[in-house]
Amino acid sequence: MTLPTKRIAESTVRRLSMYLRYLEGLDAMGQRTASSDELAQLCGTTPAQVRKDLSFFGSFGKRGLGYPVHELTEHLQEILGLRQAWQVVIVGAGKIGSALAEYRGFKQRGFQVVGVYDKNPDKIGRPWGDAVVRDMSTLPDDVTEHHVDIAVLAIPADDAQDVVDQMVAAGIRAILSFAPTSLHVPAHVAVKTVNMAMELEGLSYALTNRGA
Amino acid sequence: MTLPTKRIAESTVRRLSMYLRYLEGLDAMGQRTASSDELAQLCGTTPAQVRKDLSFFGSFGKRGLGYPVHELTEHLQEILGLRQAWQVVIVGAGKIGSALAEYRGFKQRGFQVVGVYDKNPDKIGRPWGDAVVRDMSTLPDDVTEHHVDIAVLAIPADDAQDVVDQMVAAGIRAILSFAPTSLHVPAHVAVKTVNMAMELEGLSYALTNRGA
Repeated sequence: MTLPTKRIAESTVRRLSMYLRYLEGLDAMGQRTASSDELAQLCGTTPAQVRKDLSFFGSFGKRGLGYPVHELTEHLQEILGLRQAWQVVIVGAGKIGSALAEYRGFKQRGFQVVGVYDKNPDKIGRPWGDAVVRDMSTLPDDVTEHHVDIAVLAIPADDAQDVVDQMVAAGIRAILSFAPTSLHVPAHVAVKTVNMAMELEGLSYALTNRGA
Repeated sequence: MTLPTKRIAESTVRRLSMYLRYLEGLDAMGQRTASSDELAQLCGTTPAQVRKDLSFFGSFGKRGLGYPVHELTEHLQEILGLRQAWQVVIVGAGKIGSALAEYRGFKQRGFQVVGVYDKNPDKIGRPWGDAVVRDMSTLPDDVTEHHVDIAVLAIPADDAQDVVDQMVAAGIRAILSFAPTSLHVPAHVAVKTVNMAMELEGLSYALTNRGA
């Protein structure tokens, strides 16, 4: 098995996540092999795309035999960095953070929420799942001290860049942002943005321009 | 002003949303013109990209003068289908749906939540913002009767395709899904998927493969 030597496109990484989701299901059901046709159908893509995506990682499937489900599952988990624990903080003790923390697959996949932060005095100190909401002002020190890897940012756009700058200085390496603004970070920090308004606007664009 | 004649890539539509967000801010502050340099910096892209994206819609900026902020704002709103009202239902009365409904920019942009649905008897009939949670079994009839355009799907993966099939049969035209599964819909239905686990996996991939 080969580790990829060149950088893989974000769209490929997303499909690998999707393949993994279904492979885990097949593995749990005891299925030994899966064809590229089967994976393509489950994931809504083409067999050629599946073969191309998986070819990045060396020679896997045997023609006519399909991919070994268990082996491929473990390998994809490894590639995606899911066979280790990640320390996650949630910044903003609102509904989005709460929805994330309750998400079943979250802990299973090694994402450990080690702290929840807010600047609202009414929220600080209140219980929040298994944790207690902490004061935002302690966030940078905590990031450094607990070697936090990933921050989930669920605060208003106006505050976002400031908080990001503090976390970056404190050593954060990845950010998943729900703040509806673009963030500026150094090249070594990975950022993903989920912008609900933008997703909806993509739909209204499609509705408007696709005709009736 | 020209309407685009060919289909625009999703990534372009996302940037148009982003430009619009900043242009609305500039417009509200009374700024008359904006250069591609300024827009690029605000949105984290390049001036060449800004010029290319906006060139789809005919000749806008005048070299050396920049883009007319107010005119461009209105035009982007029109292109993105934001100068009309969209009827939205939220399927799944959980935290994600609740976070969306409370999102400030949601109503402003013409997305009107006309119903919230759940199949949990404990939730049906309970107040939910300005609305009352309705029984999922009434969803298809409501979609048809109220000409619902967009459904926000925030239910578990196992139930998702079933509910989608019912809504499609009832006439839904666009779906924003938070269910961690791929959905199969006819070509005339637009789908966007927000998968929080997948976003996090994209980050763990980056953390794993970017080196320390």
